Amino acid sequence: MKVCRRVTFNAAHRLYRKDWSDEQNDAVFGKCNNPNFHGHNYVLEIWIDGNIDPETGYVIDLKIVREIAKTEIEDRFDHRNLNLDCSEFQDLNPTAENIAVVCWNLLRSKLDEKYGLSVRLWETENNVVEYEGS
Amino acid sequence: MKVCRRVTFNAAHRLYRKDWSDEQNDAVFGKCNNPNFHGHNYVLEIWIDGNIDPETGYVIDLKIVREIAKTEIEDRFDHRNLNLDCSEFQDLNPTAENIAVVCWNLLRSKLDEKYGLSVRLWETENNVVEYEGS
Amino acid sequence: MKVCRRVTFNAAHRLYRKDWSDEQNDAVFGKCNNPNFHGHNYVLEIWIDGNIDPETGYVIDLKIVREIAKTEIEDRFDHRNLNLDCSEFQDLNPTAENIAVVCWNLLRSKLDEKYGLSVRLWETENNVVEYEGS
Amino acid sequence: MKVCRRVTFNAAHRLYRKDWSDEQNDAVFGKCNNPNFHGHNYVLEIWIDGNIDPETGYVIDLKIVREIAKTEIEDRFDHRNLNLDCSEFQDLNPTAENIAVVCWNLLRSKLDEKYGLSVRLWETENNVVEYEGS
Amino acid sequence: MKVCRRVTFNAAHRLYRKDWSDEQNDAVFGKCNNPNFHGHNYVLEIWIDGNIDPETGYVIDLKIVREIAKTEIEDRFDHRNLNLDCSEFQDLNPTAENIAVVCWNLLRSKLDEKYGLSVRLWETENNVVEYEGS
Amino acid sequence: MKVCRRVTFNAAHRLYRKDWSDEQNDAVFGKCNNPNFHGHNYVLEIWIDGNIDPETGYVIDLKIVREIAKTEIEDRFDHRNLNLDCSEFQDLNPTAENIAVVCWNLLRSKLDEKYGLSVRLWETENNVVEYEGS
Repeated sequence: MKVCRRVTFNAAHRLYRKDWSDEQNDAVFGKCNNPNFHGHNYVLEIWIDGNIDPETGYVIDLKIVREIAKTEIEDRFDHRNLNLDCSEFQDLNPTAENIAVVCWNLLRSKLDEKYGLSVRLWETENNVVEYEGS
Repeated sequence: MKVCRRVTFNAAHRLYRKDWSDEQNDAVFGKCNNPNFHGHNYVLEIWIDGNIDPETGYVIDLKIVREIAKTEIEDRFDHRNLNLDCSEFQDLNPTAENIAVVCWNLLRSKLDEKYGLSVRLWETENNVVEYEGS
Repeated sequence: MKVCRRVTFNAAHRLYRKDWSDEQNDAVFGKCNNPNFHGHNYVLEIWIDGNIDPETGYVIDLKIVREIAKTEIEDRFDHRNLNLDCSEFQDLNPTAENIAVVCWNLLRSKLDEKYGLSVRLWETENNVVEYEGS
Repeated sequence: MKVCRRVTFNAAHRLYRKDWSDEQNDAVFGKCNNPNFHGHNYVLEIWIDGNIDPETGYVIDLKIVREIAKTEIEDRFDHRNLNLDCSEFQDLNPTAENIAVVCWNLLRSKLDEKYGLSVRLWETENNVVEYEGS
Repeated sequence: MKVCRRVTFNAAHRLYRKDWSDEQNDAVFGKCNNPNFHGHNYVLEIWIDGNIDPETGYVIDLKIVREIAKTEIEDRFDHRNLNLDCSEFQDLNPTAENIAVVCWNLLRSKLDEKYGLSVRLWETENNVVEYEGS
Repeated sequence: MKVCRRVTFNAAHRLYRKDWSDEQNDAVFGKCNNPNFHGHNYVLEIWIDGNIDPETGYVIDLKIVREIAKTEIEDRFDHRNLNLDCSEFQDLNPTAENIAVVCWNLLRSKLDEKYGLSVRLWETENNVVEYEGS
């Protein structure tokens, strides 16, 4: 049984590597490498895998997931610049894939080991990534 | 190959255990324990797993799934109070997880054994559960 | 210029008139007259009409709309039974139309007179009503 | 008869006035005043009002609207920082309201006078503005 | 007060005029003029304008609208070829605009004069038309 | 890690087998066997499975997926009649299942072997299929 809580955060970002030339960054990341950033309404689906607790009928109270999501995801990334404001991306290119890994790690560290975890991140209505952990 | 039919039902429910005190129910279920109930537009995705029939090009005719869904799900739960009107929840707390299990069992019993079955139930646009059977 | 804030509330209700017989209620309201109630995820769009404040660039700060919506709509109707828990519907049938009028009146009383107001209420993904005031 | 084409652009922005102190900006714009910007997936609905051409059955060929939208909106705002990259917002706070006015003016100047024009701009799934011109 | 019922129909069509040359049709309608047709999932929003009946709390029972929509729209256009199967488009190019006018006329003829009527037709998720009658 | 690009195509089709009688086709495919075709707005989710490239932070640049999708899917199927215009369905019934298999094969042949591939095809908002390859 899996349960999911969906949360959102609105952030600016830029795709580039500090150790690459402008030409290289442009060639690989195109308009996503705009030096003054662009942004997205990110939608994160947090999927928790576990057994139904026969007492409550819950796998996990989604209020708990919402609170973890608030502290770990929204307070950290909402209305922020991922490249400039967030230590997680100081040396990590904030692609959707890397954002998903960072979110997964942040959530994993706060979640009881008995639960499985995967995340799905919508960057736009046409681009999505899914990460189930390593 | 999997195929899915999406159906909806609008129902009232209340989360609580008869054998718990009001305090206990409030502590665990909060506003979901409102004694006079609240309600949701449930969306159920019914996913059937099987091989394509080379004659028809169908895994299963989705009209069959729609008919089973009508009899087993909509006629039973739509415009009902899950706690008061539905025998399935007389002694079972109607959390999204338990509703998904009940729907899965109802559908499973009407579906040819050769098919796999999983269900995804949206309680709100932010809360979802998924059940693949035990 | 119009600005809109979208909010949701999940509530139980039943369509019927106390002063009608069961037969009359059934004939007119059908399955919406289930005596034990059913429920919906209501989505309310709150549309405010006004001029852009040249200082802020806002018609109205949507945080203000969100706060009014929280106090007047969500705290009042979310996770409630409209018929039993809400004084507004003691003598008023909670059809989508009447709910929209009640929401409009509640919001109107808290909103500066200089603003126009209309509301759009989604009861299901197929049924919607819109009210611009009398 | 009205026809609509929906387009999107992903941009960074920050709400603030250069002529206000940081305190004033924070008091009014809160987290939207993050100095390093944040961002959105903007969705713009372009509504054109006119008569059906009896020859073609079109009010206007939506390909024309899409092309104007590409040149005037997407090429200008997509993957940009509205505050830093776009001359339109050098002295104009990029609130959803002001962005809608700017888009309306840009589109209006390219559209035959015989057509009416209004725009609806979604900043998030919960915040929308609508502008019909002055 | 306005109330809306949303219905869908899946149809094939082709944009062209019999009295034009192929070149002219191609120049104006492009890929929409594919001689073997293409198709859409049309979504029709039917908006009824009227006063709330103080007895029922309804502007109109949406079941009535749904039945009219079934007879006049779905039975006529769903799983059909608009050009070949539907007399309404024998001499009328089935653009979204013209389909909206035809739907409006069909619905108008079945609807009590005391109600106002407008329709909104989604041809794709990016193209919409709205018609309020002549 | 999986990444997804969502694309659309609008096509006409008819479900039937040339080697069956009209009666047999009607009995099995019902209104989907309308001889003059009907149509859909198909939505195809293309899911690519692989490791994050530590240099770019991408599993695969979604621009590449978009280009393959344009050449292999949109240029081939958009604004077409699947039965009459597309050689893939000359002897294959264009059910959602078979369309998904055809899309999967077309995409698979253009995609580096190191990537996994699955597709999800929405035929309507209620009918979906998913194919992970044989």
